[in-house]
Amino acid sequence: MSLEPGVVVELDPIAERSARAVRPFAATEPRARAAALVAVADALDGHAAELIDLAMRETGLAEPRLAGELRRTTNQLRLFAEVIVDGGYLDARLDEADPAYVIGPRPDVRRVLEPLGPVLVFAASNFPFAFSVGGGDTAAALAAGCPVVVKAHPGHPELSRRTAAIVTGALEASGMPDGVFQLVEGEAEGVALLRDERIRAAAFTGSTRVGRLLAGIAAARPRPIPFYGELGSVNPVYATAAAVAAEPGLLSGFLASVSGSAGQLCTKPGFLFVPEGAPLDDPGELSPPAEHRLLYPGIGRAFEERRAAVLGAEGVTVLVEGSVRVDESEQRFATPTVVEVGVEQLLAQRDALLEESFGPLSVIVRYRELGRLPELHRELFPGNLTSTLHATEADAPAVAPLVEALAETSGRVLFGGWPTGVSVTNAMQHGGPFPATTTDSTSVGTAAITRFLRGVAYQDAPQALLPAALRDDNPWGVPQRRSAAGRSAGWGTLTGEY
Amino acid sequence: MSLEPGVVVELDPIAERSARAVRPFAATEPRARAAALVAVADALDGHAAELIDLAMRETGLAEPRLAGELRRTTNQLRLFAEVIVDGGYLDARLDEADPAYVIGPRPDVRRVLEPLGPVLVFAASNFPFAFSVGGGDTAAALAAGCPVVVKAHPGHPELSRRTAAIVTGALEASGMPDGVFQLVEGEAEGVALLRDERIRAAAFTGSTRVGRLLAGIAAARPRPIPFYGELGSVNPVYATAAAVAAEPGLLSGFLASVSGSAGQLCTKPGFLFVPEGAPLDDPGELSPPAEHRLLYPGIGRAFEERRAAVLGAEGVTVLVEGSVRVDESEQRFATPTVVEVGVEQLLAQRDALLEESFGPLSVIVRYRELGRLPELHRELFPGNLTSTLHATEADAPAVAPLVEALAETSGRVLFGGWPTGVSVTNAMQHGGPFPATTTDSTSVGTAAITRFLRGVAYQDAPQALLPAALRDDNPWGVPQRRSAAGRSAGWGTLTGEY
Repeated sequence: MSLEPGVVVELDPIAERSARAVRPFAATEPRARAAALVAVADALDGHAAELIDLAMRETGLAEPRLAGELRRTTNQLRLFAEVIVDGGYLDARLDEADPAYVIGPRPDVRRVLEPLGPVLVFAASNFPFAFSVGGGDTAAALAAGCPVVVKAHPGHPELSRRTAAIVTGALEASGMPDGVFQLVEGEAEGVALLRDERIRAAAFTGSTRVGRLLAGIAAARPRPIPFYGELGSVNPVYATAAAVAAEPGLLSGFLASVSGSAGQLCTKPGFLFVPEGAPLDDPGELSPPAEHRLLYPGIGRAFEERRAAVLGAEGVTVLVEGSVRVDESEQRFATPTVVEVGVEQLLAQRDALLEESFGPLSVIVRYRELGRLPELHRELFPGNLTSTLHATEADAPAVAPLVEALAETSGRVLFGGWPTGVSVTNAMQHGGPFPATTTDSTSVGTAAITRFLRGVAYQDAPQALLPAALRDDNPWGVPQRRSAAGRSAGWGTLTGEY
Repeated sequence: MSLEPGVVVELDPIAERSARAVRPFAATEPRARAAALVAVADALDGHAAELIDLAMRETGLAEPRLAGELRRTTNQLRLFAEVIVDGGYLDARLDEADPAYVIGPRPDVRRVLEPLGPVLVFAASNFPFAFSVGGGDTAAALAAGCPVVVKAHPGHPELSRRTAAIVTGALEASGMPDGVFQLVEGEAEGVALLRDERIRAAAFTGSTRVGRLLAGIAAARPRPIPFYGELGSVNPVYATAAAVAAEPGLLSGFLASVSGSAGQLCTKPGFLFVPEGAPLDDPGELSPPAEHRLLYPGIGRAFEERRAAVLGAEGVTVLVEGSVRVDESEQRFATPTVVEVGVEQLLAQRDALLEESFGPLSVIVRYRELGRLPELHRELFPGNLTSTLHATEADAPAVAPLVEALAETSGRVLFGGWPTGVSVTNAMQHGGPFPATTTDSTSVGTAAITRFLRGVAYQDAPQALLPAALRDDNPWGVPQRRSAAGRSAGWGTLTGEY
């Protein structure tokens, strides 16, 4: 593995070191692990200026966006610190022994969620902090008590190394065991580790093509492992006639969401459905958006091709033409492009139009009947990170079937606003039916920790050999759900009670 | 699909009917769904004599075992009724809007677990009630609000049809929507449905070979789906010298666990490790176990072959010879076989000895050093439904590393007793690292419901368009976890607090 040109690193010691960290790391107390996460957050904040500077240079993203992203990333670490100190995530269940249980004497059974083991995290290009080296997957896996190996994204190598050094230093200074966090670089290296039997789970944020490939590798191992991939989403937005009338700045709001971070966001709204004839604000009157660099040459090229395909599709009207410019180092700089089609053209040109455009390009679709949207949505967009509805209160009964279709096919349903700008909170869901994620799981928010845990039950265990979270004296003070003897199911109290 | 010889059934209408049931079933109130589960339980209990009679004929299992299994199965349905009325399984999370959230204004976000959609259940041969038509996977999926299609096991076709008719009748009488429960038969039919895009998840109990095959099909679909397979486990048991001394009936207890239901249980203890020279009770003095029919000719043949391979392995001493007899209809009848080997022979003959023997055969392994067992266990048994330790209180410090190894590799760790006889409770875990299950999930106990749910977040939704479980008036009275505004993470209170 080449950390630097010419330097070859063996992967075996990396997997071995991660495996050796499993037991000591799993044995750390929640408060110690929480303190370590907070120390990592503090260390990253302490190096904010340097890190943001590196990130600007390597990704072309703007300073305010990167400063916000770093704040989000360190907050994420602190949020997971709260989660593990709270202990509810352990889902501790205690069944008291019950000699009179309805299906025969019941032993003392206690169940807790325990860490899966080494987690391989594939970093993303478009969030150099929040979905990269010290990002959400890393925070969730470390919080769960799993050693992490991050496979860096080649789009920001210097930043990845610097971040890794800071994370490693803070974990070491917090007394965490050797090997709980490591960084590797290179595609072949990532794949080799994904095949390594010592890796017990993988998380990935990236394209549908690469995500499927890696998921297949994870499933084909002699011992398959869970692969949590966040792959792709076009995030449709629907507006009713009343909402368009009530929201005169709808198009400029849409354009701001499409062009922020040059549209290189997994939650960028790729489609805006508005009624035929509904007047939008005049695109000519919008202040022309500034040119924005695309992340790296590969992404720039792919965007240029997608844009050409969309502009060349039959029946497409250009609403905001936009631009792509190439400089001498093959970097692309773009302004947003917005086109308009009718539902029939969209259906006829679905091969050209439905694929995700990773960059500042979106499609406005003119629809005739609100009542046909649920069916249309299910057909066109079966798996989304987000779907958004702009409607007025009076629309509620009419849009209820559409809301049902959006919830069925999406991880997050928004009412008003725009899907970009994902809040990191307890209730956030960032993941949905395939291809949004491979498994319907979430990679943002505190529920993300469950991806790296598995249930273990202890039957008739002496107190001395029980995990702390299951002991009667409950030294960590975690929530314990007790099923008392004599309150067993099926005692007859249920029959006919409802 | 041939429900009866000569009758061909189309699969497309079955998948379509299941898909059509998704929305009305998801919309049922928890209490109505709970009442329906209890009605199914009551109906099955009401037909106990008839069902047990059918099961005895088709499986060769004994009446008391089948009566207990049916009781367990109906109790399981009642337990899930309790779970859905309680509502905690919905994991309802409410983040209040917070304009002063540390990473920027936070919207109102609410998240709840919603049903995945149609679930395909592959029934098992060895539990004609508990892991079959109306068994655990069906109960968990229906409780989650998912329509179910069961692929019957060919080992008990009449019982499957009769059970399905009773289940369907009870669901209909309870007002559940058309199509929430259907039965199909045939391998090709099961595979075709697994490939059908309308099926959203699958659950399976059976062999590692078939389970891997089906898991691969689920992963290779254009839109992959989760596949929850319980595949195989040899359930090792370890006894310390002190435990052998303190438990004079150890061997007869082991033999009873090995021979119950003719050893055709996924939790049958396949290995018992005892110290070299530790005196076991004399097998010659044990009352000879009765002959027991194996489930069906295919299982009988496979067992006969496995037994021959084990008896033919070098270094194996026969402790209890056992027998297999074939009758004119190709049914096999067996008495238990127990062999003894040293650790070195086991390692040398691992190809012959380590594979699961589905039937009444187990191996006693004589070990020299307790301290070497953790490493040996990790190497030989990386994935188990259960592992069991027989030790005395004084052994606790010495066995702690072994307990750690057992927990790392097993879904359930028992202290004393035998792993057969799985209690159906809140804290039960029936599933572990591969190949015990494909995903570390559990197929027994109330946590099994989470397999058929996915998170959906609603952002800034009007009360009228929120799912009931997320509404402020909480009409179902489910537990709601609120994150209050102003109590956001990252406010500085955390830094250095731990």
